[in-house]
Amino acid sequence: MIALTTRIPKPTLERLPLYHRAVESYLAKDQEAISSQELGREIGVDDYQVRKDLSWLGAGGRPGYGYEARHLLERFEEVLGLKRDHTAVVIGAGHLGTALSHYSGFRRYGLRILALFDRDPNKVGKQLGDIPILDIGELGSIIKEQHVPLAIITVPAPEAQRVVNLAVEAGIKAIWNFAPASIQVPPEIIVRNEDLAVGLATLSHYIVYGRPSD
Amino acid sequence: MIALTTRIPKPTLERLPLYHRAVESYLAKDQEAISSQELGREIGVDDYQVRKDLSWLGAGGRPGYGYEARHLLERFEEVLGLKRDHTAVVIGAGHLGTALSHYSGFRRYGLRILALFDRDPNKVGKQLGDIPILDIGELGSIIKEQHVPLAIITVPAPEAQRVVNLAVEAGIKAIWNFAPASIQVPPEIIVRNEDLAVGLATLSHYIVYGRPSD
Repeated sequence: MIALTTRIPKPTLERLPLYHRAVESYLAKDQEAISSQELGREIGVDDYQVRKDLSWLGAGGRPGYGYEARHLLERFEEVLGLKRDHTAVVIGAGHLGTALSHYSGFRRYGLRILALFDRDPNKVGKQLGDIPILDIGELGSIIKEQHVPLAIITVPAPEAQRVVNLAVEAGIKAIWNFAPASIQVPPEIIVRNEDLAVGLATLSHYIVYGRPSD
Repeated sequence: MIALTTRIPKPTLERLPLYHRAVESYLAKDQEAISSQELGREIGVDDYQVRKDLSWLGAGGRPGYGYEARHLLERFEEVLGLKRDHTAVVIGAGHLGTALSHYSGFRRYGLRILALFDRDPNKVGKQLGDIPILDIGELGSIIKEQHVPLAIITVPAPEAQRVVNLAVEAGIKAIWNFAPASIQVPPEIIVRNEDLAVGLATLSHYIVYGRPSD
């Protein structure tokens, strides 16, 4: 096994979860070998790009056979950090924050939500299952004491930057932003903006103009 | 202007909302011309792919100048159907369904949620702002009578297939599936699975191994 490098290019990294999902579905159908052409069709890149992407993981296919699905799956899990547990806080105990705290799709990625934070005194002090809702004033100390790496932002857009600043000051490493607002952070902080409107835009085209050719 | 074709390849179409967002941000900074290299960097493909993608829209760049941002924006809005209003129903009036019904990021895409559907008698009959919560038994007649093209699925995973079947029988054109479940539909139905775990997988890598090079 090669040493894991942090030099995987961002576009490649963003495709890894898609490869991961595709390989999982092949394995679910008991397909043990996958060609770069098949993988490329699944995620919409050509087979040259697939081979280039997978070479970053030290995964090599065999001519006439393809990639071993199980080996690929292991490499994805390692590179995507899926075998480790992660903790996170959710900022904003509204509907989206509550929904994400319950989202069962996160479990297989080992994500554990430690707490929700809100400023509404009617919410603070309550529990959401086994997750406490805490006052936003406690955010900094919880992030610091528990070394929480990830903050999930679900506050209304005008409040997003303020709570992001609080999390950054407390030493957060990564921000997952669901607020439809663009946020500014120091360069060392990782940000992922989850723009649900992107999915809608694609569907919108299909609805208006019909299904595209694949 | 060329006639709009339905032959835009799916991978290209999936990149259009990303181009759209990038062009919007350039225009917000008063940048009138954008090169294919700049666009490619933003969304993680090479400049050859950018030129190929944009040629599907009949958008041509000028050597030494690039693409006209305003023209590109118009083409994206047209091709993505962003200038038309869409109606949708949300199935599942839980936290995620409620959150999506309120999500302000959808407004600029002209999405109008007609109703939420649930089977819980404690929810049915209530209003969410101006959106009524109706009994799931009424789903078919609403989709048929109002010609609703899009159903957003936010029910728990084990119930997803059943409500999708109801929507399909009623003549829905597209399904936006937020349930962490894979669903089966006839080939003419458009499906987009919104796997929030994909975002988490990418962040997970960054947190474990540090930020990748761009």
